Amino acid sequence: MTDYPRFGAGLWHFASYVDRYAVDGYGPPRTTLEAIELAGSVGDLSVVDLNYPFTPGVGLDEVKEALAAQGLSAIGVTPEIYLRRFCRGAFTNPDPEIRQAALELMHQAADVVRQLGAQYVKIWPGQDGWDYPFQVNHGDLWRLAVDGMRELASAHPDLKFAIEYKPREPRVKMTWDSAARSILGIQQIGLDNVGVLLDFGHSLYGGESPADAAQLLIDHGLLYGMDVNDNLRGWDDDLVVGTVHLTEIFEFFHTLRMNGWEGVWQLDQFPFREDPVDAARTSIRTLKALHRALDRLDLAALRQAQAAQDAMAAQRVVQDALLDTAIG
Amino acid sequence: MTDYPRFGAGLWHFASYVDRYAVDGYGPPRTTLEAIELAGSVGDLSVVDLNYPFTPGVGLDEVKEALAAQGLSAIGVTPEIYLRRFCRGAFTNPDPEIRQAALELMHQAADVVRQLGAQYVKIWPGQDGWDYPFQVNHGDLWRLAVDGMRELASAHPDLKFAIEYKPREPRVKMTWDSAARSILGIQQIGLDNVGVLLDFGHSLYGGESPADAAQLLIDHGLLYGMDVNDNLRGWDDDLVVGTVHLTEIFEFFHTLRMNGWEGVWQLDQFPFREDPVDAARTSIRTLKALHRALDRLDLAALRQAQAAQDAMAAQRVVQDALLDTAIG
Amino acid sequence: MTDYPRFGAGLWHFASYVDRYAVDGYGPPRTTLEAIELAGSVGDLSVVDLNYPFTPGVGLDEVKEALAAQGLSAIGVTPEIYLRRFCRGAFTNPDPEIRQAALELMHQAADVVRQLGAQYVKIWPGQDGWDYPFQVNHGDLWRLAVDGMRELASAHPDLKFAIEYKPREPRVKMTWDSAARSILGIQQIGLDNVGVLLDFGHSLYGGESPADAAQLLIDHGLLYGMDVNDNLRGWDDDLVVGTVHLTEIFEFFHTLRMNGWEGVWQLDQFPFREDPVDAARTSIRTLKALHRALDRLDLAALRQAQAAQDAMAAQRVVQDALLDTAIG
Amino acid sequence: MTDYPRFGAGLWHFASYVDRYAVDGYGPPRTTLEAIELAGSVGDLSVVDLNYPFTPGVGLDEVKEALAAQGLSAIGVTPEIYLRRFCRGAFTNPDPEIRQAALELMHQAADVVRQLGAQYVKIWPGQDGWDYPFQVNHGDLWRLAVDGMRELASAHPDLKFAIEYKPREPRVKMTWDSAARSILGIQQIGLDNVGVLLDFGHSLYGGESPADAAQLLIDHGLLYGMDVNDNLRGWDDDLVVGTVHLTEIFEFFHTLRMNGWEGVWQLDQFPFREDPVDAARTSIRTLKALHRALDRLDLAALRQAQAAQDAMAAQRVVQDALLDTAIG
Repeated sequence: MTDYPRFGAGLWHFASYVDRYAVDGYGPPRTTLEAIELAGSVGDLSVVDLNYPFTPGVGLDEVKEALAAQGLSAIGVTPEIYLRRFCRGAFTNPDPEIRQAALELMHQAADVVRQLGAQYVKIWPGQDGWDYPFQVNHGDLWRLAVDGMRELASAHPDLKFAIEYKPREPRVKMTWDSAARSILGIQQIGLDNVGVLLDFGHSLYGGESPADAAQLLIDHGLLYGMDVNDNLRGWDDDLVVGTVHLTEIFEFFHTLRMNGWEGVWQLDQFPFREDPVDAARTSIRTLKALHRALDRLDLAALRQAQAAQDAMAAQRVVQDALLDTAIG
Repeated sequence: MTDYPRFGAGLWHFASYVDRYAVDGYGPPRTTLEAIELAGSVGDLSVVDLNYPFTPGVGLDEVKEALAAQGLSAIGVTPEIYLRRFCRGAFTNPDPEIRQAALELMHQAADVVRQLGAQYVKIWPGQDGWDYPFQVNHGDLWRLAVDGMRELASAHPDLKFAIEYKPREPRVKMTWDSAARSILGIQQIGLDNVGVLLDFGHSLYGGESPADAAQLLIDHGLLYGMDVNDNLRGWDDDLVVGTVHLTEIFEFFHTLRMNGWEGVWQLDQFPFREDPVDAARTSIRTLKALHRALDRLDLAALRQAQAAQDAMAAQRVVQDALLDTAIG
Repeated sequence: MTDYPRFGAGLWHFASYVDRYAVDGYGPPRTTLEAIELAGSVGDLSVVDLNYPFTPGVGLDEVKEALAAQGLSAIGVTPEIYLRRFCRGAFTNPDPEIRQAALELMHQAADVVRQLGAQYVKIWPGQDGWDYPFQVNHGDLWRLAVDGMRELASAHPDLKFAIEYKPREPRVKMTWDSAARSILGIQQIGLDNVGVLLDFGHSLYGGESPADAAQLLIDHGLLYGMDVNDNLRGWDDDLVVGTVHLTEIFEFFHTLRMNGWEGVWQLDQFPFREDPVDAARTSIRTLKALHRALDRLDLAALRQAQAAQDAMAAQRVVQDALLDTAIG
Repeated sequence: MTDYPRFGAGLWHFASYVDRYAVDGYGPPRTTLEAIELAGSVGDLSVVDLNYPFTPGVGLDEVKEALAAQGLSAIGVTPEIYLRRFCRGAFTNPDPEIRQAALELMHQAADVVRQLGAQYVKIWPGQDGWDYPFQVNHGDLWRLAVDGMRELASAHPDLKFAIEYKPREPRVKMTWDSAARSILGIQQIGLDNVGVLLDFGHSLYGGESPADAAQLLIDHGLLYGMDVNDNLRGWDDDLVVGTVHLTEIFEFFHTLRMNGWEGVWQLDQFPFREDPVDAARTSIRTLKALHRALDRLDLAALRQAQAAQDAMAAQRVVQDALLDTAIG
């Protein structure tokens, strides 16, 4: 028996990818059902976040069955408001008809959340923003972003909406770009069913400390979910968690634990050139090692070091838990 | 006769500098009075922001006289809460005695603002933050930052306090790091005499669009002041304005004008290896060219382009004002 | 009559794009022939660089006819050694069979260069490199990169091969990542038909000064071609040239002119959300303005400023050519 | 008994610092002799790299005695060609007299190397480069850099000269900015007593993989020395080693071991706000843990993973050595 947290993954972890160079894709396309099957085969996943719409021809009942067959449940649903039709924006598209179409897709996704018994509609407005100086009137753009989210969330008071902020990509600059800006926007929205999904990598490469961002969101009661991965701080590489920033991901998990935040540890990774099941298993292996290291952390010593803001003492405590430092 | 805005500068523009390598300084030290004289010699400056304390032996009356002699007035006073004593933090120092000492220095600076008839106490808490993962308890640190500012500002309801945010340096990470986070903190402070001084370069290298940050602050009624400079987006280089980001500084000024924001155009530059008067004159020459270009901007065409988020059309309008594009 | 340089473009400027989010593409796919027609419609383009293979069903004769019909000629051919098959590397793929397949594709592209009378085979090994720490043996990887290029170029002594370096993307780290490293590698190759295509944006976001990189390549006799665009220094945004870094693109062109480098001014842009013809025309409008500004540059004054490394004097000279600074 | 490598430090690790904000310094100044005493008190240091000139009033004999008293020897001497006099450049200063003065200081430092029996003169030309676009003629600047180094090194054929490259700071852009460019320049110099000191942090924040840079330098026979520290990849933070990039520093040491490189593991850190002895001890504690982890690394498995470029397999091997992954 173990006290590990529940693990989850964005279902896109098990898709294959395209980018602007490998336009024929990094592998053959996979259907929603195939991705669910791969997710199930990882062995340690309890929940997935599903893109919506599903791949063509796949119905909701089939998805339910596939999830059940793999012992998975849905934690969230992510409407694809970043496909071609919305490439110049969803909430902030200059064309009111396309804004309306985006809202309609999100209303449908809300329905799917209800039917799957998921926790939230995840809103990732990756095409909302701008590319060039002088392209937009910034006041107008932000109003569109905030008003659109309010219209959406107020139509579904029974559901939660989790905004996943990100500094940029695919837009050169995104509107919901940081934890602080997201909190500001949610305050302007003025509803109690809008919160944030914190992506570790987005926070890191946006220049935040993910631990600090998590604390800020928790203090505002807005941390609806989180997912993890890694990068080199310059881009949203969506690498496998723990491959670069071991200490900072450990600080992130420590902060969640200290706040009694007990949600799912969720993977948002893009294993372009790796086997996705192998990548997920390697990730969870690392997450479990980090979880055990949390248990070993000398909290009293760490508290004392932090009260004095003594970075060296804190590091020694951390490394004693994380590394083999038994022999000096 | 001209309608140029009033120009100003941080008085440190006319100081000489040290850094961790040229520990003997990039030039001989200058007193507050010598710096004021240099500022006056630029010829186009109306106001300065003064560091406090003044250099040893210089009294407030002398400063007043020196300013008057140069036809300058004080726009703000910047208490040096980033010197040795406060190198582990001012508001967020782990030692309550040093926090108290920092507050006392800021109370004195507030008094100097009154006596100089300046507009604001500028608060730049450059040493508040952290350097290492796990060094601080992020929740505690933010509370110290917010509570300290509240204590300071509530003691001087007759004065304004302008927080100058910055992502980092000298701390590896600063607490007041962005426009959005500053607004959040000011809302938590809950007083109406705390606002923001927006530094163009801080915004730029923090991954914001300075024009967008300005709009957000104006929409919250919090843009108390601004200063300009330039950098390569990776660090606070404090280069001379307009030497790298001509289009973005132009968008910044355009945004201020569209909002009817009519404050001082202020220089915050560190001409380490340049003559400071030459650097200031070159800067103002550029600022005047940008100001004239603003007059040439085809606002109707720009508005139309921005309503359609048509980046190319907007660029053509901008370049017609900024460059010689008369001949196609 | 005008003395403008010849203008060119990568043919992909007129394609439509996909990325990992808008997997259904930013617009309907275009064939090689349609892209050529769009390139021709720009009106100021003389040459294009063509991806190879052409889109399915399009033959070489059709391409020749299409180019002729638009008054275009081929400057280079870019074999697509970054598609699915090569997503784990072309020259540096761990599988010798795939390395061989990549070479065969490049041999075919060499043949197309001959038949089109183009200047060079452009080699852009975007999938050569690594994603994770410890993933590769760095010595082995570099040897594969160098040896493969030697094998390729030595098989075609009548042709030129232009390596286009780039710091990263799609690989998290690319092997040919900078001007200096490319020169080193070419020295190791030891052939006189291998050079460099310098992409302004790659240089800029790789932390180089593009003007300095151009000078270094010219001094080694290796600047075979160049293309231009823009970005925010953190990523290869492939924005329209001159929209962000006006001064630095101007310095780049100035450096080329001072060295008597008279090649094509070529666009390598990805107008994801813009009309490609409109984007190309806006680009060339800017390039022409920059070219005229070069004519206005006071070279004697600039030379004097640079001899003294007087940055302020140099800036004034530059702005006098670039902006309206007639009225002080 | 232990097989740990010899540990060393730049003597500046035990100085106190100033920067452009804390102009009164992060602590009271320390003399060369006091710094040596602190270095000795760490307990695990064998060698130091000494700045030259020593602090005023300290002679060479005193330094020798102080080193002997602490059981330390000199590995290198670093002439301070970045102080005020050289703030506009040492080798690349526009003024030939100052270039000459810089060379004279370096000749003196060469003499000190002889007298201390050190391994190399370390050349860190931090003020050589430029700040602004158009400030310099890049061809001229590079020639000054290369010719000056040649003149210096050819005057001392009995000594080694180790260039420490760095992307930037204090100059906005430095001439010797990367491993590849340094190798190129050394080839142009054409002498066999010029090599490179690789600083892990400089490499990291310059966008290199430090392991790859080390391999490249070793393959050219030019890795004369190295030092370690850490940063957030955006700046030369000179943080304590291993506090951020555990995996990448481990890859770096692994690469050195695989090449049989057996030099000193040297600290180049700036503990602005930490006790320098505590920081050095914490560093060496980490370095020892990493060294033990190297012994645990399953080399056969790693070799196999790298031959297949299998990032996941490599990660598991690495984490098995680095972390507690005993329980799955």
